[in-house]
Amino acid sequence: MALGEFDLIERFFRQPSRAGAGVTLGIGDDAALLELPPGTELVAALDIIVAGHHFLDDASAHSIGYRALAVNLSDIAAMGASPAWALMGLTLPQAEERWLEGFMAGWFELAARHGVELVGGDTTRGPLTVSVQLSGWVERGTALRRGGGRPGDVLVVTGTLGDAAAGLEVARGADELSLATFNALSPSAAASIAAADAIAAARAELRRRFEYPEPRVAFGRRARGIASAAMDISDGIAGDLPKLAAASGLAAQVEVARLPLSAALRVLAPADRARHWALSGGDDYELLLAVSPARLPALQDLAGACGLPLTPIGELCPGAGVTWSMDGAPMPVQPGGHDHFR
Amino acid sequence: MALGEFDLIERFFRQPSRAGAGVTLGIGDDAALLELPPGTELVAALDIIVAGHHFLDDASAHSIGYRALAVNLSDIAAMGASPAWALMGLTLPQAEERWLEGFMAGWFELAARHGVELVGGDTTRGPLTVSVQLSGWVERGTALRRGGGRPGDVLVVTGTLGDAAAGLEVARGADELSLATFNALSPSAAASIAAADAIAAARAELRRRFEYPEPRVAFGRRARGIASAAMDISDGIAGDLPKLAAASGLAAQVEVARLPLSAALRVLAPADRARHWALSGGDDYELLLAVSPARLPALQDLAGACGLPLTPIGELCPGAGVTWSMDGAPMPVQPGGHDHFR
Repeated sequence: MALGEFDLIERFFRQPSRAGAGVTLGIGDDAALLELPPGTELVAALDIIVAGHHFLDDASAHSIGYRALAVNLSDIAAMGASPAWALMGLTLPQAEERWLEGFMAGWFELAARHGVELVGGDTTRGPLTVSVQLSGWVERGTALRRGGGRPGDVLVVTGTLGDAAAGLEVARGADELSLATFNALSPSAAASIAAADAIAAARAELRRRFEYPEPRVAFGRRARGIASAAMDISDGIAGDLPKLAAASGLAAQVEVARLPLSAALRVLAPADRARHWALSGGDDYELLLAVSPARLPALQDLAGACGLPLTPIGELCPGAGVTWSMDGAPMPVQPGGHDHFR
Repeated sequence: MALGEFDLIERFFRQPSRAGAGVTLGIGDDAALLELPPGTELVAALDIIVAGHHFLDDASAHSIGYRALAVNLSDIAAMGASPAWALMGLTLPQAEERWLEGFMAGWFELAARHGVELVGGDTTRGPLTVSVQLSGWVERGTALRRGGGRPGDVLVVTGTLGDAAAGLEVARGADELSLATFNALSPSAAASIAAADAIAAARAELRRRFEYPEPRVAFGRRARGIASAAMDISDGIAGDLPKLAAASGLAAQVEVARLPLSAALRVLAPADRARHWALSGGDDYELLLAVSPARLPALQDLAGACGLPLTPIGELCPGAGVTWSMDGAPMPVQPGGHDHFR
C-alpha cells in the first residue's frame, strides 16, 4: 500500500510520546526548537548511508534503521558528547508500511537506549538513502578532539577491529570464508562437528557486528578529562589514524600484531586476511584514543567499567606520518582507509 | 578526474576562512562544536533534494547547490530565526571537479548572503541526492510557529505564488506554455514582436524563480512579535494552509482570486492554469502568515521595508478545515499539496 508523505511522518516518525530533554518543539513545524543545557556546546554530526554502498540491498529494514543512527552516535561518542536530537532525511523508492515499521523499530530500539529524540526531517521519493543529522551537547571546552594528542601519548582502541568487514562478507554469503579455516581446523570427523558449531557461531557474531555496531557512547563520554584525543574508526584504522596524527601535528607508530582481533574473526579468517580487515576494513565504529602513559591506567579502569576491551597499539611521537610494524619489522600499509569514492 | 572523498572535503567544502559566528570547531573532526548566543534556542531543519524529483536531471550544478541551501533557509525563515550553521550530506554518482566547483559556488553565493557556515557533513557515492541540515537560533520563546494563529487573524502571503511550478515547465522546455497565450496576445505582427520579447523575459523570470528561490529570511526574522503564526509554502498553499489551520486548531477561508500572481505568470499562463499552480504547484518558498487585523499594517510596513509584496488572501475562524472561494462562490480545491509520495 502506498502512503503519502504526511501519513508517513504521522504514522512512523512520531516517537512514543515522552517529554524529550530540551525539546521545545519537535516534529510538525517548519523546524524544531531545542534548548541546550546551560554551560554546554552543541555537537553536530551528519552521516549518510546508501543502499548497495553502506548496506546490502537485501539488508533487513530493522538493521538499516539501527545502523543509520549507530554510525552517527559513534561520531558523537568520539567527541565525548551526550547525544540528544536527530533529524532524518529518508529517500525511499516507495513507501511500504512493512519496511517502514521494521526500519523505525530498529531506529527506536537504539534511540531509546541513548535517549535520542527524533525531532524532524524530510521524506522523499528516490533511491534508498538515509541521512541522519544527530546533535548532542558537551560541557563547554571539554570535547575530545582529534587534534589533542601529545608526543608520548599511547594510542589505544576499544573493542576489536576487522569484525564488521568480515561480517559484511558473511552477509554476502561468502562461504569460502569459513571453509578456508574449517579444513585446517578439522582433521577428524569429530572435530569437524565441533568446528562447524564454532564456525556457525562466529559467522553469526561477525554478521551482527556489521549489521548492529555498538557505538561507544558511555565510554566516550567518560573518557573526557582522561584521554587527550579521540576519533571513531569508521574507515579502518589505516585510514583514520593518519587523520588523528595529522590533526595533532604528530607522527604515529603502530605495531600491527597488537591490533585486537575477536575470537570469531580468528576462528574464521586466515591471519593475514584478518589483519587486512582490521587495518582497512571499515565499519567497526570503535574508538581510537590517545592518552598519556600516566593516565592510561585510568582509561583502562574506565574501559573495564564499561565492559570494553581497551588495547594499546602504538604511540604518538614528534614528526609526521604513520609507521606500521609487524612484530617489530617495518610493514607497508596503504595509507588510505575505506573511501566511498575510491 | 575521480577524486577521493577526503580530497573532496578538503578541496570544495572548506569555506574561504572566516571567523564563523559561534563555530568552535568546524569541518575536520568527528562532529562540529557550536555555541549558541546567550538567551536563544536552537532551530533545526533538514531537507533533501533528489535529482529528477526536486530538480531536473540537466539542472546546472550551480542552481542545485543554491537550491539545496535555499529550501532549508526557507524553513528557518518561517520560524523567524537567524540561520547559522549547515551540515551537508552529498551523494554523488561520481566526483567531478567541474560539477563540484559549480555546485559549491551556488551554495557559497547564498551562504555568504545569509551568514551560513558549512561546519560538517558526509560525502558518498550513489544517486545524486543532497541533504542539508541547517541550524539557526532565535531568542527564547519568540519563534514563529504554525500553531499560533487566532480566530479573526488575517492570512497573508509574501511575494507571488505559482511561479516556480510554471518555471519548472519552462525549464522542461514546455513551449506550449508560451504559445498558448502568444496567439491570444498577438492579433497583429507588430504586437507579435513585442509579445515575443515579453514572453522571453517572462520565461526567464519564471525559470529563475524555480531555480533560484529567494528565502524570506530577513522578513521572517522581523515578523516575530507582529505575526501570530507562520510557515513556508513549499508544497503549494492548498497543501500547506490546512497544516497551519490545523496546528492552530482553527478553520480558514481563502478567496482564490486574491492569490498573488506575478506579471510573468499572467503573461504566460491562462488564468485557470496560473491559479492551479498558485494553489498546488509547490516550490515557491514564500511565507504564509497569520496576523491580527490590528497588526496587519505593521506587517505590511515591514514587507514594504523588505521590498516584498504582502497580500491578504483570507482569514482564520473557529472550526476546522479550509474553505476556498472564487469571487465569492465556493470552489472545490484538492486538499493535498505537492506530495513526493503521491
